[in-house]
Amino acid sequence: MKKLDTTPKQDGFRMPGEFEKHAGCYMIWPERPDNWRLGAKPAQAVFAEVANTIGKYEPMTMIVSKAQYSNAREVLNDYVRVVEMANDDSWVRDCGATFVINDKGETRGVDWTFNAWGGLVDGLYFPWDSDDKIAMKMCELERVDRYRVDDFVLEGGSIHVDGEGTVMVTEECLLSEGRNPQLSKEEIGQKLCEYLNCEKVLWIPRGIYNDETNGHVDNMCNFVKPGEVILAWTDDENDPQYERSMEAYEYLSNETDAKGRKLVIHKMYTPAPILITKEESEGVDSVDGTLPREEGDRLAASYVNFYTGNGFIALPVFNDPNDEKAIKLLEELFPDRKIEPIYAREILLGGGNIHCITQQLPL
Amino acid sequence: MKKLDTTPKQDGFRMPGEFEKHAGCYMIWPERPDNWRLGAKPAQAVFAEVANTIGKYEPMTMIVSKAQYSNAREVLNDYVRVVEMANDDSWVRDCGATFVINDKGETRGVDWTFNAWGGLVDGLYFPWDSDDKIAMKMCELERVDRYRVDDFVLEGGSIHVDGEGTVMVTEECLLSEGRNPQLSKEEIGQKLCEYLNCEKVLWIPRGIYNDETNGHVDNMCNFVKPGEVILAWTDDENDPQYERSMEAYEYLSNETDAKGRKLVIHKMYTPAPILITKEESEGVDSVDGTLPREEGDRLAASYVNFYTGNGFIALPVFNDPNDEKAIKLLEELFPDRKIEPIYAREILLGGGNIHCITQQLPL
Repeated sequence: MKKLDTTPKQDGFRMPGEFEKHAGCYMIWPERPDNWRLGAKPAQAVFAEVANTIGKYEPMTMIVSKAQYSNAREVLNDYVRVVEMANDDSWVRDCGATFVINDKGETRGVDWTFNAWGGLVDGLYFPWDSDDKIAMKMCELERVDRYRVDDFVLEGGSIHVDGEGTVMVTEECLLSEGRNPQLSKEEIGQKLCEYLNCEKVLWIPRGIYNDETNGHVDNMCNFVKPGEVILAWTDDENDPQYERSMEAYEYLSNETDAKGRKLVIHKMYTPAPILITKEESEGVDSVDGTLPREEGDRLAASYVNFYTGNGFIALPVFNDPNDEKAIKLLEELFPDRKIEPIYAREILLGGGNIHCITQQLPL
Repeated sequence: MKKLDTTPKQDGFRMPGEFEKHAGCYMIWPERPDNWRLGAKPAQAVFAEVANTIGKYEPMTMIVSKAQYSNAREVLNDYVRVVEMANDDSWVRDCGATFVINDKGETRGVDWTFNAWGGLVDGLYFPWDSDDKIAMKMCELERVDRYRVDDFVLEGGSIHVDGEGTVMVTEECLLSEGRNPQLSKEEIGQKLCEYLNCEKVLWIPRGIYNDETNGHVDNMCNFVKPGEVILAWTDDENDPQYERSMEAYEYLSNETDAKGRKLVIHKMYTPAPILITKEESEGVDSVDGTLPREEGDRLAASYVNFYTGNGFIALPVFNDPNDEKAIKLLEELFPDRKIEPIYAREILLGGGNIHCITQQLPL
């Protein structure tokens, strides 16, 4: 498949909203014992549940290393396709292709440079070369041509689009030291607009408190549809999240999208703070160069990290009283989609959630 | 995708003739330096030529290890799809899936047990576990269900079918010590008929002289169409091949196919004996457990090892006077297909030829 030197905007391709129709979904099987406790077995069980759930609604492909291939094939439902691909970890949202489409029903992939959320500045593991090849390999699998963006570091979880010209990010992440320090905010915005085919960037100041991705927007705020967003929220003024949600709310309240619309903002209450237990910490291998998982560390738990698929929402829940609130809010906002709650603490322990471990292939 | 416990015959699936319409073709990128000289670079150039040629006519997928992925992607034409898959060597005809189809346009895969052409008796390398998983992984890629044949060793190069109930094999290979010594000839015939959906087995006594596969039929004899075969031939009575071709001719002359037809037999003259040179031998790593490539060894060169694809034939040639004869014969027998000759000495040095390194996906 071709490596293209043009941009999606030049060629009339755009990234559609996640709520638009999908042709499928990708995930990567978790494995590394220095990030996933107990040899990744508890995480694998939850990843399997996510894949089996999504696979009921849209064609699911699970990317798996050579070593874990047979095990994953055995554990996953028959309707999940298993394909072999070397990887450094299991965050396909971030290292995978961002697919773009045009009006003729053609699909292409954007292959951003991936550096494990900050490279040698504050990246989360080393090396990350296998992950940086995942987007190319996904494009090959799908037989689609590819825009390789060699001079720009980006993870798919750091953007959300409305499919109508608006992209939403956080300054905390996009302006971080470890990604594109050579570019100005304006230049970064131009790159986004060129490769996603957008006209307007919404710059939310910060993401979720203590999020190791430097505050990915996909844990903080998501589009319901053009002109309407869901924002992670807390009323607890003593929670460091309060200030972050408040400043995002104020920013978004005073902004318009690419079409000039004021945004409707829905507040989604976060669960009570979730801390890593001693047992959970002890199940993770200690390795130089990988972010440690220490007892008492606060996890970046947020219901906003849901996946919007064909006729359903896969929603992380935490056995928290706010689980029900999140489900109800989504039922109201997505009356045509079934809400599929999945107990996701094991994903959260690895540093993200359902949206971070999925990547849609639009139709 | 499902692992099935039934058989293709039970389910109404059959292996079509190679000359029937294809949906695509698979190959595996050569790599191991204990089989391919000079780090497999000369072989890779020829494999690329084969893939680029076939890719002009039908969708081509190249299976490549993690280590060689980037190199293969760079070397191959854009229209060749590159997918990652661990492998032990590059003979997808033998370790890959044998695809079967039904009248509704559905496809499934037969996943024979693979033991590197003879396992611990006279297999050609050890281990072979990655190769034995290739068929399963091809079925996953294509999203097709799979018949795993756990109790029967077979390579795809040891069979040819006419798509109308006849399968052609050699006794030399199918009855060899290293494959299914626990089964009688009759039981082996039954297995073939069950999994290929055939009624008649043609048992050619032996294959090409000094063929390390124990005489695969695909180097010796091929179907032009039902009722018509091409047989490797020599008039030189001093060539040990003479006796082999003669006995095959006599056998086939006295047999009928599943439909009761007498066979039309076309003789295809082999090239003059081709021996491994000192330079070629020295380019191969010496490794315990892998068949050595020694100076002066005779290679099992045969034009019969061609690949029949959509509108073309990919034909191995050897810079031999008989090249032209082979091309002419195929032009006569396949008037609607373009004959694509490819200089294939480097493939031959590895132990096979174009048919051995390709596997069609029928439509």
